[in-house]
Amino acid sequence: MPMLAAGPLSVHELTIFFLALAVLMGVAKLLGEIVRHWGQPAVLGELLAGILLGPTVFDYLSPSFHNWLFPTEGGSAIALTGFTQLSVALLLLVAGLEVDLSSVWRQGKAALSVSLSGVLIPFAIGFGVAYMLPSLMGKDPTGEPLPFAAFIGIAMSITALPVISKVLMDLNLFKSDMGMLIMSAAMVDDLIGWMGFAFVLAMITDGGAHGANVLMNIGMTLGFAILILTVGRWILHRILPFVQAHTVWPSGVISFVLCIALLCGALTEWIGVHAIFGAFLAGVAIGDSSHLRERTRDTIHQFVMSIFVPVFFATLALHTNFIANFNLLLVLIVLVVAIIAKVVGCYLGAAIAGMSRRESLGIAFGMTARGAMEMVLADLARKAGLITDELFVAIVVMALVTSIISGPIMQYILQRKKSMKLQDLLSDKNVILNLQATTSQQAINEMAQKIAPAVSLPAEDIATTVWQREQMMHTGLPNQMAVPHGRMAGLSKPTLVLARSANGVDFDASDGKPAQLIFMLLTPQQDNGAQIELLSLIAHTFDKSQIREQVLSASNLTEIQAAINQAGSHDQH
Amino acid sequence: MPMLAAGPLSVHELTIFFLALAVLMGVAKLLGEIVRHWGQPAVLGELLAGILLGPTVFDYLSPSFHNWLFPTEGGSAIALTGFTQLSVALLLLVAGLEVDLSSVWRQGKAALSVSLSGVLIPFAIGFGVAYMLPSLMGKDPTGEPLPFAAFIGIAMSITALPVISKVLMDLNLFKSDMGMLIMSAAMVDDLIGWMGFAFVLAMITDGGAHGANVLMNIGMTLGFAILILTVGRWILHRILPFVQAHTVWPSGVISFVLCIALLCGALTEWIGVHAIFGAFLAGVAIGDSSHLRERTRDTIHQFVMSIFVPVFFATLALHTNFIANFNLLLVLIVLVVAIIAKVVGCYLGAAIAGMSRRESLGIAFGMTARGAMEMVLADLARKAGLITDELFVAIVVMALVTSIISGPIMQYILQRKKSMKLQDLLSDKNVILNLQATTSQQAINEMAQKIAPAVSLPAEDIATTVWQREQMMHTGLPNQMAVPHGRMAGLSKPTLVLARSANGVDFDASDGKPAQLIFMLLTPQQDNGAQIELLSLIAHTFDKSQIREQVLSASNLTEIQAAINQAGSHDQH
Repeated sequence: MPMLAAGPLSVHELTIFFLALAVLMGVAKLLGEIVRHWGQPAVLGELLAGILLGPTVFDYLSPSFHNWLFPTEGGSAIALTGFTQLSVALLLLVAGLEVDLSSVWRQGKAALSVSLSGVLIPFAIGFGVAYMLPSLMGKDPTGEPLPFAAFIGIAMSITALPVISKVLMDLNLFKSDMGMLIMSAAMVDDLIGWMGFAFVLAMITDGGAHGANVLMNIGMTLGFAILILTVGRWILHRILPFVQAHTVWPSGVISFVLCIALLCGALTEWIGVHAIFGAFLAGVAIGDSSHLRERTRDTIHQFVMSIFVPVFFATLALHTNFIANFNLLLVLIVLVVAIIAKVVGCYLGAAIAGMSRRESLGIAFGMTARGAMEMVLADLARKAGLITDELFVAIVVMALVTSIISGPIMQYILQRKKSMKLQDLLSDKNVILNLQATTSQQAINEMAQKIAPAVSLPAEDIATTVWQREQMMHTGLPNQMAVPHGRMAGLSKPTLVLARSANGVDFDASDGKPAQLIFMLLTPQQDNGAQIELLSLIAHTFDKSQIREQVLSASNLTEIQAAINQAGSHDQH
Repeated sequence: MPMLAAGPLSVHELTIFFLALAVLMGVAKLLGEIVRHWGQPAVLGELLAGILLGPTVFDYLSPSFHNWLFPTEGGSAIALTGFTQLSVALLLLVAGLEVDLSSVWRQGKAALSVSLSGVLIPFAIGFGVAYMLPSLMGKDPTGEPLPFAAFIGIAMSITALPVISKVLMDLNLFKSDMGMLIMSAAMVDDLIGWMGFAFVLAMITDGGAHGANVLMNIGMTLGFAILILTVGRWILHRILPFVQAHTVWPSGVISFVLCIALLCGALTEWIGVHAIFGAFLAGVAIGDSSHLRERTRDTIHQFVMSIFVPVFFATLALHTNFIANFNLLLVLIVLVVAIIAKVVGCYLGAAIAGMSRRESLGIAFGMTARGAMEMVLADLARKAGLITDELFVAIVVMALVTSIISGPIMQYILQRKKSMKLQDLLSDKNVILNLQATTSQQAINEMAQKIAPAVSLPAEDIATTVWQREQMMHTGLPNQMAVPHGRMAGLSKPTLVLARSANGVDFDASDGKPAQLIFMLLTPQQDNGAQIELLSLIAHTFDKSQIREQVLSASNLTEIQAAINQAGSHDQH
């Protein structure tokens, strides 16, 4: 008898559960971070982790080991499923928290026009194609045509709020009018899309666990949604300040939010439309309250995204063979229909609202990203028997491709530059950990020597240019920093050199102190504002004394990057 | 067929899993917060939640409903067990992260003396009593005497790091020499205690899942512990900055820490000494690295404590009847032995290290707190068949009682005052949301009127005292605040009045601006520094413009308390 069995879980099952969780989390985060470095959404890497660990690769290499680590039944499989179901409910909770209904009202007519047109037209196109040509869209011939067509319509109309907001941030558009409009429209689309999907599920669970009929299911779902978004929202808005005042902050309010989400999730699961709807609507109701602090929202977001969500996405592909079920024709059809449906719908909506052609096209492509939410939807539809594995794979691929292309296309249409990140500009080619120089001219020479090979320009030319500029007006800043700089003919892109000087070098700063952190900025002749952008990035990042101290005391480049990375992440919150 | 079944979990099981989780989390956090307001450790409330929801009360009232919500087998029971096992592993990870071996070395001889004496003497006493008089200590007559006695010895020597650190913070001793000494000694005790318990488990799982013998189990456990604390620690220390530099902060590093903890947990579970040891040692190895940022540690602590831990403690009593298994004699014996063993051990250790009598006694009672860790230990011992349900209940009660009494006794011995908290000093009796006054004298009169009934003193006397003091030197501060104050004969304790003035009242501040936040401080004639403490508390809390703005824009008292509560919690981190 296993003596350490934890109630209904045996020692072996518990070992496997922990091990499987560690492997899924580790591989998913690792690949997620790698693709993030290529500028792609993390979910791509997390999904790849599942493909790697699932039947597509790992199972193929060693089926027995795969079955040992990821069994489909037994205690560890149940425990892992419990965890992933909790994860996806929490993912939808976070998505709901990001929906800000009051900001949609503030956006007014334009947001309403883009969102309604962006949800109704894709739905109509998707529904039409799937209903008229079901076999073309990969329908299982034995299934009901109506729920299938309705599902395809909804799959075409849903958006990916997290992907869209990241694209907008990258392009420095997030807080612009266009950014707020896109975000508002995407929120409304998500709300309508998820409600629609709940109705589809309510349709097909007729005769299911509770014997309730379709109308009853839809009625209960709608009734719950209306209640939570009106009375529930009103009550939550009043309880929140009380919870925040009288509990340990922030853990009290986090538990409160999770409890409400789990209760709503249990309720909708019982109704028969899956727990994630309850969690999503609970998120919308709570997230709308002005009493929910940004830091609370952020803390919930952090831990859901770092612990729960990667595991869920990795398990998506854990028992599906992505190669065997990859039907190129189906993938292309789904992709083309998805892009056309969304672009047409949103373009028309934006044009009706009075946007220019270019703006409308930018908005339309910004909203084609489907991302993680589409995969959750497809996973549910597969489990409910609505779609085949082939269509599941096609929809997942479509969600990935639209997420990957939407940013670059939008960037091209709007001709925006991506914002620079300081830590990406530093490498061992342009960082001097211990500057030898004792005068500003020596410092500029030494830094020019360092960077010359990387930019294929003579060190003397660089030093001369920067020194001439330095003599015109010294570049010492307060806080023991200096920013010598110059424009160089023949330079292909903005370039940075960072040097640390333990004793400091006098750059004639207004506070009279010598510079310990020296940044040399080189920009092309046609610099298009790059110099100013770099300068403000440096000033902003090193504004905090804590960050300066960490960079000064770091023992290698990696620690410097870590400190700057942290400074940047503080910033986004 | 349930169509929304999530793999091996049916709709019903998933509904019950979510519902049970929500109920456990909600009730545990609610009762935890309530007992915290009485100054007691939250774990007391969380345990009470389990007693309320378990066979002791809820099952008694409605067995069928209890069995429906908390079944002992089936999918939802397995999913919930998976969650609680993960929770307790994460709790031990957090406990491990708090162990700072390098600070123990810095404390030197005194810490070593207190910790060794504080672990060896309680172990010897516990082991001796349990081995000589097993029936007195509630031993099941059929069990092996040696592992039982060893377990009791370890149960006597373990400490409760979180309880101790909270007591020290409450008494403003945390950063004192004595506080650091107690913390270091408690860390060493925990490390030795958990290793010892691992050996006990290794002893009894002989012939268990892997057929390995006792020596093999102990050897593997020891080998793993040595490896992770030397080579593992060295490697983790080098990998951490890399992870922090190249992943999204802080989610990347959180996932990394959890992954390592889960892998180590799976390994020790496989060895046969339960997953929590691996998680604990992983925590010690990682927590020791100077590269682990305070905010990362804090974020992990927050989410583990708010989401996972309350559910675990609530489930402790979920299937145990605390009334039927409450044996008063056994409870008293365990309690007396536990207190005597720890007090004698730590007192001797402190006296040997050269502490005064009073200090030694203070340290000794500070370290008697057993808290949550003891309950985890008792739960494991019960599941391993080492102890009976009666002894389990007795140990849990002992852990609670020692945690509750250690603070007050230590406070009495050292004659320390508890530090004040601003939000606890504010109520509707002493807050004026909209001050009518336009001059400082009117303001003082109005505030004196407000507080007079609560302190049973005439309003005129208060106003006269404070106004006389005000005329000697004006109490306006920068940032539009003022702190009129005075000492009052006949006042029983320090008292505060807060008034908000929309237009401001001139208190002759150095920056010339009128005060919008006015704090009137009344202290007894013998104030023992209360005035200065209150003044610094106010200055510290309202140092941030964000907090001032939140308090000024709050629409009621609860929102003011929420803002101040948040300011205070920022502070502890």
